Parts: sequence; C-alpha cells; structure tokens
Amino acid sequence: MADYTANMKLPARVSICEVVTRDGLQNEKEVMATERKNLLIQAVVAAGVKIVEAGSFVNPKAVPQMADTEQVFANIASNSTQKDVEYRALILNKRGIERAYECGVKKAKLTLSASQSHQKANANQSHDEIFANFAAIAEFAKLNGVTLSGAISTAFGCPFEGAVPVEAIIDITKRYDEIGVGELSLSDTTGMADPALVYRNVSIMKERFPGIVWNLHFHNTRGMGLANVLAGMQAGVSRFDASLGGLGGCPFAPGASGNIATEDLVHMLDLMGIETGIDLGKLLEAAKMLQGFVGRELASAVLKAGRNSDLHERVLKLD
Amino acid sequence: MADYTANMKLPARVSICEVVTRDGLQNEKEVMATERKNLLIQAVVAAGVKIVEAGSFVNPKAVPQMADTEQVFANIASNSTQKDVEYRALILNKRGIERAYECGVKKAKLTLSASQSHQKANANQSHDEIFANFAAIAEFAKLNGVTLSGAISTAFGCPFEGAVPVEAIIDITKRYDEIGVGELSLSDTTGMADPALVYRNVSIMKERFPGIVWNLHFHNTRGMGLANVLAGMQAGVSRFDASLGGLGGCPFAPGASGNIATEDLVHMLDLMGIETGIDLGKLLEAAKMLQGFVGRELASAVLKAGRNSDLHERVLKLD
Repeated sequence: MADYTANMKLPARVSICEVVTRDGLQNEKEVMATERKNLLIQAVVAAGVKIVEAGSFVNPKAVPQMADTEQVFANIASNSTQKDVEYRALILNKRGIERAYECGVKKAKLTLSASQSHQKANANQSHDEIFANFAAIAEFAKLNGVTLSGAISTAFGCPFEGAVPVEAIIDITKRYDEIGVGELSLSDTTGMADPALVYRNVSIMKERFPGIVWNLHFHNTRGMGLANVLAGMQAGVSRFDASLGGLGGCPFAPGASGNIATEDLVHMLDLMGIETGIDLGKLLEAAKMLQGFVGRELASAVLKAGRNSDLHERVLKLD
Repeated sequence: MADYTANMKLPARVSICEVVTRDGLQNEKEVMATERKNLLIQAVVAAGVKIVEAGSFVNPKAVPQMADTEQVFANIASNSTQKDVEYRALILNKRGIERAYECGVKKAKLTLSASQSHQKANANQSHDEIFANFAAIAEFAKLNGVTLSGAISTAFGCPFEGAVPVEAIIDITKRYDEIGVGELSLSDTTGMADPALVYRNVSIMKERFPGIVWNLHFHNTRGMGLANVLAGMQAGVSRFDASLGGLGGCPFAPGASGNIATEDLVHMLDLMGIETGIDLGKLLEAAKMLQGFVGRELASAVLKAGRNSDLHERVLKLD
C-alpha cells in the first residue's frame, strides 16, 4: 500500500524538553523538597529525556517553589551518569544570569510575554525595558560561555487581551535576534492555541526567521494540546516542551489541565512511529512517582487509562 | 499574508452528531430519567445540533439505560420545533429495527466490532452470523422506508487483540456495501487511535470506497481525541460524533476520559474557522445541565477552563 502518512509531513524524530521541575512545579501550593526534584530529574533522564528545564533563578520571595534552584543544579552536577543531557534554567534578569553562571549552568532561557498587559501583570516592565535588560544579560552570557534561548509566552493568545497578533511575535523575535538569541519557544501559556493558528503562526515565523531554532510549548487547558503538537509538527517544528503528569496549570482555571503531559506526548509519538528516544514505561514510572509526591490524581490521560499496548485481560466470556 | 492554513486541507464545515443520550449514557451506573434525556436532546437541538443519536433499541435487560428508547422517540415526535433534525437510533438485530420502525424512526444505525474477539465478547456472534442478520434487517428497512447507517467499532484498535488490520475494516465495509448501507462510521471505541493511523486508514477507506459517506467517532481516552479529529479532517472527513460533557467511557478504565466532548470539539472548530452551525454558549449551558444530572464533574476541558473568549478579569495589578 502507498505511504499515505507521508502526506502528513511529519518529522522522523522529535526532541522533548521536560519542564516538570520548573513550569510544572512553579504554581504548586506546596514547595517540593529539593531531593524529590532530584529524584524526578534522575528518573526522566533515566527514561531517555535529553533536555531538562530544571528550575528558574528568579526572586525566591515571588516564587518560593524555585528558591532551591542552586541546589537543584548542584545535584545535577553530582549525578555523574548524565553527561549528554542539556539542563537549562529560566531567568528573567541580570541577577538570574549571574546566579545561573555561578552554578555552572550552560543554558539559560529568557522569557517575556507577547502581550504587554500580561507582561506588565507578571513583571511590571514594558518590552523596551525588558529588552534593554536582555541585551545586558546577552553580553554577560557571551562573555561567560552561557548559551541563551528565549521564550515568548502568551504567543497564541492572552487571557487578558485575547488574540495576540503575529506581528507582536515577529517584533519580539526581531529583538531576540538582534541580541543574538537564536533558539526560541512559542509558548501557549494559558492553553489558547488552536491547530490552525499554530500552523499559520509557525509557518509565518519559520519563513520570516529561517535561522531560528523553534520550540513549541503547549498547555492542554482546552483539550487541544496534542492536536496543536500535530499542527506544529506539520508546520515543521520537531522540538516540544512537556511536563511529567501534565503538571503545571494556569492559576486562573482551577481544575483545568496544565502542560501537555510528557507521557501522553511520547505515547502518541510512539504510536505514530516518530522517535523520541524516551522509554515510555520508565517515563510512566516517573509520572507515578510524581503523583505520589504531589498526592493527587494528575491530568495525564495515559497515567489513568494505560497505554494502548496494555491490553486488557479477556475478562468477558470469550471462546 | 499568504493563506498558510490552506495547506492543512481542512473542511469549511463540519457536521456533528450528538451521541450523549446513547453512547454517553449507556455505561452510566444510574439510569437517567426519560424526561432528563428529553431536556438534553431539546437543549442540544436548540444549540444547533442537526444529528442526534438519541437511543438504542437493544435488550433492555442487557442495557437498562436504553430501556426507554420508545418513549425518548415519542418525546422527540412531540417536540414540534425540531423538524430539520436527523434523529437516529442504534440497533443490533431484527427486533431492534422493528421497534425502531414502530416508533417512526427514520434512521437506524447498525454496529459491529472490527475485532472478532470484541464482537464475540459483546454479542457472541461471528461476522458471518452478524451479516446474515444485517441482510434481513436491510430488507426490512428498505421495505419500510428506514434509512440505515453502519458503525465499525474498535476500528483503530481492540482492547483485547491490539492492532486491527485495515483489511478487517475493508472486509466489513464490503459486506455493509453489499447490503446497501452507504453511510459508515469508523469508531475508536476504546480510544486507541492515533493521528497517523487515522490519516492512513481513512485515506485508504476513502480511496477504496469513494461512494461511502464516512463518519468518525473518537474517544479521548488517551488524550488524542481532538488530534484524531484534525487528522480525520485532513484525510477528508467532515462528519464526527461527539458526546456532551465527554460522557461515555470505556468500562475497563475508570476515571479515564470518554467520548470527545461536543463542546471541546465545537470550541476548537470555532477557533479554526470551521463552521458547525452550533452555538457554543448554548451548548455549554446544556453541558452544565448534564453535569447537574449526573452529579459529578465531567471530562470536558472547556467546561472546566472556559472558552478562549472568556477573558479573565484583570485581577492582577495593571495600569
């Protein structure tokens, strides 16, 4: 039979960045113990994850869940078997890159909101002020051998403003490009992206900025997370963030799903014949450990329903 | 800017069949009162739904939730404002089509499993036995002016056998075609479909049987429901089943999601600019009513998180 799925224009391989100990935990009410974060990071790396967003160097008073990021990176440094993994930290300002550098972090991720009102709500700075700071950070990073990537949050919609015009993303990308940041993430912070918008915006951004390495970061808030991954892959992206157990939601919608679950993503890609290098069985064990740590049922479909391959016993009367 | 999404090959319009009072309710522990079913049907029709799978004429001892299907159709007949809506009933045997005919049902849907072991577990009949009965039903239907459609359940995977070869679906389709059933549904009964499989199998089936009108019926058991809709649309299908509130799951996976939620589907299609003719606000009111009837939180993303357009108040300090 003909290779029908070739028409879908899917990548052969996808690279997944695990964000559970950063985006997953940052809105949790209880601060997770550093050793548990260490166990989670070791577990996902043992499952084959090659990129981990481990923590963030931000104000510990504002985000107490991330106050131990120095220790998280010290633990990473002592996990001797994990040499081929990229560990990155989120930073927002000069103090952040300095702290990251002091910990020996090789990759730091800047972030800002595409929407000015969301940006002001989160950080009370305009885009001009932000990029003045980012330029200083980029200079420091270059001098000290730290690679920077950048994220554009609310890239597919803002909970305050609604639709975010692609021109806003283009403008921010130009500014990132000017300070030498060549790897960017379009982040659907509150789960407002739909597949048509993803396909359109990614197509436009790839065409306008062919030199940028693009990542996509989706939340499953309105059930479209994996559909958006599919559209993103069809538009030519093969790098996606995901969070173990689907942890990490929007504080405005209690009970709603958060990040796309890493195990749901790997499960789908496995079925589709797209390589991730991740062992789904080990990943599900890590997700179960996380579920034990947070003490509630997580918004992960495969954790609840099991894999396709977990065939049910023939409990019904069969001959 | 160029019309990038044209490359996605999406339909301009999608037709949705609401299955909540049939597939949604058939595995509920408590039998829903007939009057509540009537209120649900009236509410989804008031929201713009034009196809409703209202109930099934099956053995009331085996499926007590469907024992009142005669009365459900009597109520439909007395809902005078709903003349342009197609109401269909599921049937499995000769007695079923006779009961449907006696109620004045114009459209009846046959169903069988692509997997012989699933079929035997559910109905203890082989495909040969089933189609001998279906031929008699088709003859009765033709004589009495009832239109038949057909469903192929476990079309994308069987919880007992695993993968279902496309040849099995082709074989069943030929048999349906031979008895004159020209509208078929490929049903992912236990949520095992992935987008690549959907695209491949639908492409094959459309090529082999260009005269058949295809419907797709997905469950969100493993989080891929809307991604599968996207793949199905790209393969050329524009008719989908969905269940209000996502009601209707697999009895083997308690806690797992069931059918794709009608409101999640309409929400996504609205955002993508694909017409459904359904008013999402009214549909969400119907889903809330359903949630009140069943007395537990439903697995509907938009019911929990709200629509994209429900912009949050600027509760944070903004200027």
